[in-house]
Amino acid sequence: MTFQIGIGPNLRKSAYFNATVRDGVSSFSVYNHMLIPGNFGDPEAEYDRLINGVAMWDVAAQRQVQLEGPDAGKLAQLLTPRNLSNVRIGQGRYVPLCDHDGWVINDPVLLKLSDDCYWLSVADSDIHLWATAIAHERDLDIQVSEPDVSPLAVQGPKAVDVAAKLFGEQVRDFKYFGFVQMDLDGIPLVLARSGWSKQGGFELYLQDSSLGEALWDKVKEAGAEYGIGPGAPNDTERLESGLLSYGADMRLQTHRANPYEMGFGGLVDLEGHDFIGKAALAQTAAVGAKRQFIGVTINGTPTPPGHQVSLMSGSETVGYISEFAFSKRVGKTIGIGLINSDHVGADVPLSIFADGKNHAAQITSVPFI
Amino acid sequence: MTFQIGIGPNLRKSAYFNATVRDGVSSFSVYNHMLIPGNFGDPEAEYDRLINGVAMWDVAAQRQVQLEGPDAGKLAQLLTPRNLSNVRIGQGRYVPLCDHDGWVINDPVLLKLSDDCYWLSVADSDIHLWATAIAHERDLDIQVSEPDVSPLAVQGPKAVDVAAKLFGEQVRDFKYFGFVQMDLDGIPLVLARSGWSKQGGFELYLQDSSLGEALWDKVKEAGAEYGIGPGAPNDTERLESGLLSYGADMRLQTHRANPYEMGFGGLVDLEGHDFIGKAALAQTAAVGAKRQFIGVTINGTPTPPGHQVSLMSGSETVGYISEFAFSKRVGKTIGIGLINSDHVGADVPLSIFADGKNHAAQITSVPFI
Repeated sequence: MTFQIGIGPNLRKSAYFNATVRDGVSSFSVYNHMLIPGNFGDPEAEYDRLINGVAMWDVAAQRQVQLEGPDAGKLAQLLTPRNLSNVRIGQGRYVPLCDHDGWVINDPVLLKLSDDCYWLSVADSDIHLWATAIAHERDLDIQVSEPDVSPLAVQGPKAVDVAAKLFGEQVRDFKYFGFVQMDLDGIPLVLARSGWSKQGGFELYLQDSSLGEALWDKVKEAGAEYGIGPGAPNDTERLESGLLSYGADMRLQTHRANPYEMGFGGLVDLEGHDFIGKAALAQTAAVGAKRQFIGVTINGTPTPPGHQVSLMSGSETVGYISEFAFSKRVGKTIGIGLINSDHVGADVPLSIFADGKNHAAQITSVPFI
Repeated sequence: MTFQIGIGPNLRKSAYFNATVRDGVSSFSVYNHMLIPGNFGDPEAEYDRLINGVAMWDVAAQRQVQLEGPDAGKLAQLLTPRNLSNVRIGQGRYVPLCDHDGWVINDPVLLKLSDDCYWLSVADSDIHLWATAIAHERDLDIQVSEPDVSPLAVQGPKAVDVAAKLFGEQVRDFKYFGFVQMDLDGIPLVLARSGWSKQGGFELYLQDSSLGEALWDKVKEAGAEYGIGPGAPNDTERLESGLLSYGADMRLQTHRANPYEMGFGGLVDLEGHDFIGKAALAQTAAVGAKRQFIGVTINGTPTPPGHQVSLMSGSETVGYISEFAFSKRVGKTIGIGLINSDHVGADVPLSIFADGKNHAAQITSVPFI
């Protein structure tokens, strides 16, 4: 089943849109109301580049919600259960955001640019609206905006060589989530050691969308000797690495989950700062999570259906698998999802239904690799 | 330029997804994180059915934000500048929502189901997050949720015949935006006289997504004698009719606008109730809107680029055209957009740039038909 995407004015185009079209993008998805490349026509080669070489991805749809003003730090801290007191300028953090009932509403990376300016590099929900509402309702002295920032990811084991060639050898010493403001031949950007893969790499937060094609071409040129090629956030690699995807693995409106269920309860600080959802999460912590984040291996090679599937114990639904895919490296079909906690050690056979039949599933730890 | 859409678990599938695939959907867009059909392979026939016959559209992506509880009416009223004091149960209203600075953040239809229960049938932004934040920050006694509701639109001059056949002759007397809770052979739904076209019609708010295909087929069968066929919200018709599209015509993050600029300042009630954005809108009303919503006719038949274009006066940008298309009925290329107010009566030549050259544009009133 393949369908075209209707490209109309309601979908935003990325700063790299023209460059990706020129370089052969085949499919798009939509993320934060913006077109994001899905693949460039050769998914196997794109996976291999990510695992063994270097890939470049248009991830401009990972929009920035900028908090700017004297109360920027105060608002950032209110929005997340994670304690930010030790975050320094030039550091990033993975910061789940929760609503007042403790449900996850996004899981951005926070970048502290200055004491008065933070970015939330957001997953697919309108945190701009959320942060605006909280800021105004609490009379905070702050501006919430979406600045002209378009991340370009360079990912894979050779990404560091490409970054070193572009920005200098010192980038090899960057710590994970560390970032600096740079200028690349007149192109303003924030260079961060980060990205939505576990293969290592950098994200170039371009700060002038009119220079998208120029930046794309510089990265492409510098990466040529390392075999760089275009690609996109990779579902198989993210499953192997156990990386979460807000919207796929959980979403407030349809399959909500809290941080304890999703496996990052360790980031919740109930002892320190005040934050939205604190009372609800304290209660959850006291009674224990009712569901648990798991990996599964699945017998056979069922076709991924493009949506969640129920995780069954006989005829009983005991959880869901958000996404699964065959992993060449694992040598099996792997998936991630949530299961009712009382079924974790139950030692009963589990299965999913796909391609018209049941496939046995076995719980396993995450990451797979 | 055509591209595939990557259908993954991050994009929700509508209750009618299987039915639309079976009936030949060709392209999708994404709206409220859900796939929405774009066309079924024959745009001209789909337009003609809407104008002269009857069309059925999967508009389940028009999600409902449900406000339920003793403070439901209070919250609904806080969220919109429009005065809701005279809205009765069973009535709908077009209710722009604004942020604290008076910028439009969505323009839903509000449905009052009971004194304690309202739906906001929302355009493409996460009003669920916005309403949740406001409700909690103001300690309102209310639950915000997304219920299992999937609108199916039946639009066109013969839509009323199809609805009468399905639901009885009394539907011919329904007032615009009037609705009732119905049961169609065991399928629970809210039947409303509404829809995103000016050709007349109904929206069937299905209340059990497992019955999507059953409802689709009942409508298809009842409409057969009237030549019903599948379609989708139609860009050309909406331009002819001057219907707004949040996301295309304005969006908070990228091209924000206020109600006065967008031409619905008449809905703003500054004298009565308290609402979010009131102070900012009072100030805007006092000084006058800096921009004005306009229609334009455009010389020639330039290719719609799938994004906004600048409206130029010589080399000066004086506004933007959100979308344009050739209208058979008008006999011209038509568009809508915003222009700086001081250029409205300026009697200087305007133009847009498309297909590599300038095309003269003339301001005109909206709707075009």
